[in-house]
Amino acid sequence: MIKTPYLLFLGDAPDGLAAKVAQGIKDWRPENCVGQFRMEGCKADLGLTDMTLAEAKEAGAKTLVVGVANRGGKISQAWKKVLVMALEEGFDLASGLHNLLRNEPDLVAVAEATGRALHDVRVPEVEYPIADGVKRSGKRVLGVGTDCSVGKMYTGLALDKSMRDMGMKSTFRATGQTGILITGDGVPLDAVVADFMAGSIEWLTPDNDADHWDVIEGQGSLFHVSFSGVTLALIHGGQPDALILCHEPTRTHMRGLPGYDLPSLEALRDMALPLARVANPDCVVAGISINTQHMGEAEAVAYLKELEDRMGLPAVDPYRHGADRLAEALAAL
Amino acid sequence: MIKTPYLLFLGDAPDGLAAKVAQGIKDWRPENCVGQFRMEGCKADLGLTDMTLAEAKEAGAKTLVVGVANRGGKISQAWKKVLVMALEEGFDLASGLHNLLRNEPDLVAVAEATGRALHDVRVPEVEYPIADGVKRSGKRVLGVGTDCSVGKMYTGLALDKSMRDMGMKSTFRATGQTGILITGDGVPLDAVVADFMAGSIEWLTPDNDADHWDVIEGQGSLFHVSFSGVTLALIHGGQPDALILCHEPTRTHMRGLPGYDLPSLEALRDMALPLARVANPDCVVAGISINTQHMGEAEAVAYLKELEDRMGLPAVDPYRHGADRLAEALAAL
Repeated sequence: MIKTPYLLFLGDAPDGLAAKVAQGIKDWRPENCVGQFRMEGCKADLGLTDMTLAEAKEAGAKTLVVGVANRGGKISQAWKKVLVMALEEGFDLASGLHNLLRNEPDLVAVAEATGRALHDVRVPEVEYPIADGVKRSGKRVLGVGTDCSVGKMYTGLALDKSMRDMGMKSTFRATGQTGILITGDGVPLDAVVADFMAGSIEWLTPDNDADHWDVIEGQGSLFHVSFSGVTLALIHGGQPDALILCHEPTRTHMRGLPGYDLPSLEALRDMALPLARVANPDCVVAGISINTQHMGEAEAVAYLKELEDRMGLPAVDPYRHGADRLAEALAAL
Repeated sequence: MIKTPYLLFLGDAPDGLAAKVAQGIKDWRPENCVGQFRMEGCKADLGLTDMTLAEAKEAGAKTLVVGVANRGGKISQAWKKVLVMALEEGFDLASGLHNLLRNEPDLVAVAEATGRALHDVRVPEVEYPIADGVKRSGKRVLGVGTDCSVGKMYTGLALDKSMRDMGMKSTFRATGQTGILITGDGVPLDAVVADFMAGSIEWLTPDNDADHWDVIEGQGSLFHVSFSGVTLALIHGGQPDALILCHEPTRTHMRGLPGYDLPSLEALRDMALPLARVANPDCVVAGISINTQHMGEAEAVAYLKELEDRMGLPAVDPYRHGADRLAEALAAL
């Protein structure tokens, strides 16, 4: 568990896109963000107060979060200087970089000397159990996609927000690096050893109040041959009460797999629901989330309308129109 | 890759069952077995020649294989003495024990000093790629089970033997500890990191002659919530041309999951085949393998006959009757 609130480190980001992890944290958990730290030449700006390490410490920040991609796959000496000073000032560090903080001997040495923690959110820090399949109390919803990277995390975060805005009990359960940095907690599922995948999701979504919803971040796709096993572990470990079908309608083939067509939403439903019912016989498909970023407004609205009529389920783009209708569908279950 | 042939170490096995890994090696790869090494009090006997380390070395053995379960979860000092002497005599060591050889400082030190290898087959020794889903040449067959531990490895080994006896080109591809020790090679799939599961199976079953069959050892079950993700990675990484449905008809619930009923063979077929066709649209179900060990001969024969009529597929118990009819079904594809 990463200590909040954060000071967001934007480094020398060449543009806003390079700082998209920091942007996600600021968008979804503004209450966790005390300010931003930008180095000379940084072209990203989250609109947060620029702070020195001392100012952020004074304002209560506990962790410096590396919310920016590094260039050249190496933690530069310029970054290092800031990270070391942050440890010396009493901050923990958290990062989702491929290059792990724990593989940098200077950071490790200073963290040990100062008693601070280094969080590499790509690496599991827990010994997860093997799944036991026992039915847990509380409700769970999971996004399943026709493909990878169709908006499952965004859907989950938007749904969680809508549910809490409506007064429902909800917790977003992160299963990937960005989600973990946003919420400060979660399971980096793609890095978990095979035998413990489903167990890690059971661990992540324990017994809860009968009217509480865990909104589990989806990963991969049952139709994506590289990562489908991860998806099925999520379905069986999460034992969801409801599935949200996620789709990006303009994609011409599966991400990274030129020879593979995307399935229809009907095919996704017909594959995912019987599998989900192995773990939870009462599971239903509750709605559809469409990433319409490559469509105009009129085209998007017409597409969603056609989809609703065709499949008899609420269909929304949570980015354009919010996720309230999905939350309402869950509330009505 | 573990060097063959082997000297099989039976230690102080209290009974034959404790040496079942060694028994499997002797049953399926007798040509790899130079002899057996038994300590005082050993109650297991594979019927191989008892040899000293020096005699086995003289007879050409390259690797001492720990083919026995250890008691108390610890490699005892009595075993250690033999293992160290084996390294000194020039043997590599191979083991599927939970306690890893590489975690024993004395074994590591002697192996380094003597230039010998320690093979812990529970631990991946390869950096597997992420699966790319590209269609590979050659044929592949995979056993999928209604449950874990229903006889998928046995089915694969028997099928591989029948195919080679019939003059077909076949290679058994091990995906678990015992299979790896039997064949000397394979992927310990349950210990592979999630993102690389399917890729490890692509790596294990590369391009081959058009008329060559990889017989891929199955793992887990799509219906077993603890391990289903592993099974789906096998299906998508293996891109099988044929599936063999595997079942144990007297089991009352899923292994280790008291609340879960076993699916029917029809339900298994209807779940597995559409998933397999994502990776290989031409995949078919070629036959059924039943573990009838808890049935009498007449009952078993009647059950298999009923199943054949019901499902229109060859149904055999490869232990009782061999796997020739499954091999013939593959040859006819």
